[in-house]
Amino acid sequence: MVSGTESRILMATGRTPTNIAVIKYWGKRDEALILPVNDSISVTLDPDHLSATTTVVVSPTFDRDRMWLNGKEIPLSGDRFQSCLREIRKLADDVEDEKKGIRIRKDDWQKLHVHIASYNNFPTAAGLASSAAGLACFVFTLAKLMNVKEDCGKLSSIRRQGSGSACRSMYGGFVKWTMGKDACGSDSIAVQLASESHWNDLVIIIAVVSSKQKETSSTTGMRDSVETSPLLQHRAQTVVPGRILQMEEAIRNRDFASFARLTCADSNQFHAVCLDTSPPIFYMNDTSHRIISLVERWNRSEGTPQAAYTFDAGPNAVLIAPNRKSAGLLLQRLLFCFPPPADNELTSYVIGDKSILHEAGLQSMKDVEALPPPPESKDKYPSQKFPGKVSYFICTRLGSGPRVLTDESLALLSPTTGLPK
Amino acid sequence: MVSGTESRILMATGRTPTNIAVIKYWGKRDEALILPVNDSISVTLDPDHLSATTTVVVSPTFDRDRMWLNGKEIPLSGDRFQSCLREIRKLADDVEDEKKGIRIRKDDWQKLHVHIASYNNFPTAAGLASSAAGLACFVFTLAKLMNVKEDCGKLSSIRRQGSGSACRSMYGGFVKWTMGKDACGSDSIAVQLASESHWNDLVIIIAVVSSKQKETSSTTGMRDSVETSPLLQHRAQTVVPGRILQMEEAIRNRDFASFARLTCADSNQFHAVCLDTSPPIFYMNDTSHRIISLVERWNRSEGTPQAAYTFDAGPNAVLIAPNRKSAGLLLQRLLFCFPPPADNELTSYVIGDKSILHEAGLQSMKDVEALPPPPESKDKYPSQKFPGKVSYFICTRLGSGPRVLTDESLALLSPTTGLPK
Repeated sequence: MVSGTESRILMATGRTPTNIAVIKYWGKRDEALILPVNDSISVTLDPDHLSATTTVVVSPTFDRDRMWLNGKEIPLSGDRFQSCLREIRKLADDVEDEKKGIRIRKDDWQKLHVHIASYNNFPTAAGLASSAAGLACFVFTLAKLMNVKEDCGKLSSIRRQGSGSACRSMYGGFVKWTMGKDACGSDSIAVQLASESHWNDLVIIIAVVSSKQKETSSTTGMRDSVETSPLLQHRAQTVVPGRILQMEEAIRNRDFASFARLTCADSNQFHAVCLDTSPPIFYMNDTSHRIISLVERWNRSEGTPQAAYTFDAGPNAVLIAPNRKSAGLLLQRLLFCFPPPADNELTSYVIGDKSILHEAGLQSMKDVEALPPPPESKDKYPSQKFPGKVSYFICTRLGSGPRVLTDESLALLSPTTGLPK
Repeated sequence: MVSGTESRILMATGRTPTNIAVIKYWGKRDEALILPVNDSISVTLDPDHLSATTTVVVSPTFDRDRMWLNGKEIPLSGDRFQSCLREIRKLADDVEDEKKGIRIRKDDWQKLHVHIASYNNFPTAAGLASSAAGLACFVFTLAKLMNVKEDCGKLSSIRRQGSGSACRSMYGGFVKWTMGKDACGSDSIAVQLASESHWNDLVIIIAVVSSKQKETSSTTGMRDSVETSPLLQHRAQTVVPGRILQMEEAIRNRDFASFARLTCADSNQFHAVCLDTSPPIFYMNDTSHRIISLVERWNRSEGTPQAAYTFDAGPNAVLIAPNRKSAGLLLQRLLFCFPPPADNELTSYVIGDKSILHEAGLQSMKDVEALPPPPESKDKYPSQKFPGKVSYFICTRLGSGPRVLTDESLALLSPTTGLPK
């Protein structure tokens, strides 16, 4: 490394969105290469509300690799971090920063240490795939810093190692991860089906569900399902291929009814496969079930889907409405059934894009308390309320793919010390 | 009807056990004839703890059919009761009671009215198939009174109309309901695989789980699954046939490990198919899930199954232990995790065969409170307690098939008035 006089630090900051699958990935055909048993399709969420930001700095003065997550130093000993770091170092190329007078040659990377800082703009450990987003961002930003060529098949493989589904966060809008056929995984890559602007009416409401249950990690759960569920292969080989085609068509035509039906059915089938696993895996809880019932009752009473739901490896609901009006009606139903616990402010209970809340006529807790029961719940189902069962709601929309943040003021590490600001 | 001078009433009383499937019936291939999409296997439960008793009386003085359930008169207008009654009347034969000097000819039955009284010795509407047991008993007792020939294929069909799975209650011990091939259903009958004495070590503990959720009836749920679940046919055609053979072998060899693995896997797969239905059906709730986790953790820590669980169309758990010792250990675990709510007597919280309780060293609430957490819960899982989540436990065992109660003192209707005693 040849550096100038001013600073011997080179840095890159990247921001990566999270994504939620509408046709689920569940099961690997190759554990080492993270190759899936079926294609999956996801929507990328708005990074303004749900994203990871990572800054990576390199300097010959660093004596070891270090990492900070949300401001707190964490050991960089995790298998995944280590293997990602090792693999990306191998793919690193020459880097030159004329302004700073820094030049790093390809082979230098093996000896240089990095500092990494990562930050999620949404609560970690709420089951919102924060670690997957973090890992995707880690790989993205490291690759930028080390000048790894984007079109290299190897990089896609490293991304999958971080977290299979995180590879879908490489694009905005609607993304398909094709399972591919190649044994080496060269064709198991994410492709963008449509950008976020193709269908920008969609509104997404995430219900973060309170849970005390210890959950099975998706890595372990997926492995157990592949090994023990007699239904998994039938799903992967017979059911999903048709659904992928139908979902691509629904997205192409902005056909919300088909989109919603496929999304709900596939979420339920994924959880069915989890239940068919030995020992069975339960990601949804009674609150998740109640949210499903709420949406299903509404959809049935209207005769056509008003909203879709999907659940990943946890109890949180991701709800998708076709437009702002439906989203408002959905939010009214959700808040009627799951009001904030006493002494809670509405502004901290519904976060993200609060304009949906306002358009739905919900300015304060008083408005929430005055909500009438949804008309469809009147006859057959008592309109029960479950305060405290949802921790909070996030209102958001589709968003764009990862990007480099060139504004150094957004970096998480100091450009002079390489330590958290 | 020619009658003597003393009494113009003829009566029959029958008692029918309940059964719980270990390989589940879910889905009809013929809705009218109640023909299933796959074979199923059940165990018959001890009628001392879970059975229906029905008395049927006939008299020319009755001006209409009447029915009492658990002492309360109910309208006999239900489709199923009416169609069972109509069909059995068609099959009725000559009856002669020499002692009473009564003679009823085949054709008389069409004009004669009956009084029916039914009683369950376990709580109705607790989701313990009380209506199925009641209907099975109704058909059994009516057929006895009307002298319907047992080997008539038509009777089996009437039994199925009452409730598909109730046809398995016609024998004690282990019973298989073969799906059959005949379009008319003539070969879709229940057969006994082994009597209760073949494997009489088994102990059954039923956890009646508290629930406020409105449940989907199994009739509707099953129909929805057949119409919408992409996994149901695969289960019925590809998975169940193998499991039936393995289960028959496990029963033959009294191989508890295989029996337990198959029982648990098939219960979970049935609920997986419910979840794969559109809209999804949830019969199990968080308490059901916790009971499963409790058993699974114990089984895993011991390396071999200590207990099996199975759930029907509701949240109640039916747990099967290989012997009294394991049943005691299971009961300790269940009571640790699901203690009775405050001010509850242990004797009303654990009912049925209380000797299991005593052998497990649990004489009073004090003993329950003193229970240590199960050793397998220590490290990874906090040993949480959930008082009030289980309403009560029933300890029982395998039992015998239906029988006629000849002792008139056990009849539910007066032999002189034909009204409830």
